[in-house]
Amino acid sequence: MIAGVLLDLSGVVYVGDKLLPGAKEALRRLHDAAIPVRFVTNTTRSTRQAIIERLSRMGQSVDPDALFTAPVAAHAYIESHGLSPHLLIHPCLESEFADLPDNEPDAVLVGDAGEGFNYQNLNTAFRHLMNGARLLSMGDNRYFQETEGLSLDIGPFVAALEYATGTKATVLGKPAAEFFCAALAGLGCRADEAVMVGDDAVADVDGALTAGLQGVLVKTGKYRPGDEDMIQSAGAQVVDDIGAAVDWILANRG
Amino acid sequence: MIAGVLLDLSGVVYVGDKLLPGAKEALRRLHDAAIPVRFVTNTTRSTRQAIIERLSRMGQSVDPDALFTAPVAAHAYIESHGLSPHLLIHPCLESEFADLPDNEPDAVLVGDAGEGFNYQNLNTAFRHLMNGARLLSMGDNRYFQETEGLSLDIGPFVAALEYATGTKATVLGKPAAEFFCAALAGLGCRADEAVMVGDDAVADVDGALTAGLQGVLVKTGKYRPGDEDMIQSAGAQVVDDIGAAVDWILANRG
Repeated sequence: MIAGVLLDLSGVVYVGDKLLPGAKEALRRLHDAAIPVRFVTNTTRSTRQAIIERLSRMGQSVDPDALFTAPVAAHAYIESHGLSPHLLIHPCLESEFADLPDNEPDAVLVGDAGEGFNYQNLNTAFRHLMNGARLLSMGDNRYFQETEGLSLDIGPFVAALEYATGTKATVLGKPAAEFFCAALAGLGCRADEAVMVGDDAVADVDGALTAGLQGVLVKTGKYRPGDEDMIQSAGAQVVDDIGAAVDWILANRG
Repeated sequence: MIAGVLLDLSGVVYVGDKLLPGAKEALRRLHDAAIPVRFVTNTTRSTRQAIIERLSRMGQSVDPDALFTAPVAAHAYIESHGLSPHLLIHPCLESEFADLPDNEPDAVLVGDAGEGFNYQNLNTAFRHLMNGARLLSMGDNRYFQETEGLSLDIGPFVAALEYATGTKATVLGKPAAEFFCAALAGLGCRADEAVMVGDDAVADVDGALTAGLQGVLVKTGKYRPGDEDMIQSAGAQVVDDIGAAVDWILANRG
């Protein structure tokens, strides 16, 4: 019985600069049904404020309190562990970490640096890791949908640093169970009363199912036929789009 | 009983622009003992000719026929399979592949592109792979020793593309058994009569042992204490440097 909803943004609500067909109406139906929603994203090329402004320009208003991001989770983790991170992140995101110490780095925090994933920056991060710094990653997504095609996301570059150093990253965004739990905290429902809706079979759907939530895969955004075969956990729903996901949620509401 | 020797170059014979201490004398002792040698390298930032000229400037002459490289092995593989490769390689190496077709790529050939490993180039390769091209890699080395520190080699970037696409690369340099076999072809000895000497515990030593050769790990170049623990196969020798490796070879010659 569904009492709360986590929604991925890119590929579910919008692609590029445009809301997906039916997204605005689907969100309105959840609102009208008084089902609490949190937007959860591993997007690390924009600050929370920029994401909200972008949605607003597309015609979708979102309450800042309803947006939970991997950078928010990463900042909380770094503070609570007293770490001094070297940042391999997108320039747009630097303001969210400007208050943290960065002398003598004992961690490397990786975001989707985009064009910042060049040889020199990756090599600098690699050398910090070989000197004993911990590898922290704001997600492990393989790729995302851009208007002109699929593009490499954070995961491949984290995999590169893992391979080079023989270590495993601590993932602080989806699909980490801790991320889903933290996102649920504001919803006032248990994990098994919540559903995660996303276009990433592994990071969104399998991650949510592993964390004890229900999971709905939409066939928009980066979805490719057969992606559902990558979901290891049982119980995933597969639907066409966010409209169909909301149909399922309203039919299974608590 | 050793009757032929495969020698890695960077980290064994030289680092940066300098021969390692004792390297020149060690090579002279092998020559005087009439033990045939092939230099085998995954280096893909230089043509064979440039490698020979570089060694010459350091004061070490090498017969071109004694140098077997991953690009030579890759070129032969691509030709024999009739492939049309998209190249993600160092500009210095382009001349070695200029004769191959590149229209409608059905393969992506990755070398150590160095600064060419930028977001745009990796994304272009990724999109070819997602369109069905095969992933070919001239090695899977994790890092190499530069004068100022360790630097990322080809392997991490291949790992990134493998992770992004969910595929596995065909490795055409070390540690592929086919590479060691091809390098041995000119030596006139069986695999079990040959030894590979390298500073890479996995690509050089474990690869050679898996291919049926003997393997000697030197503690120069990229070697770090504990690297020998990464050798899965039995029988590896671990010695200080190329001079000690030649001591072992001469003591075990056929």
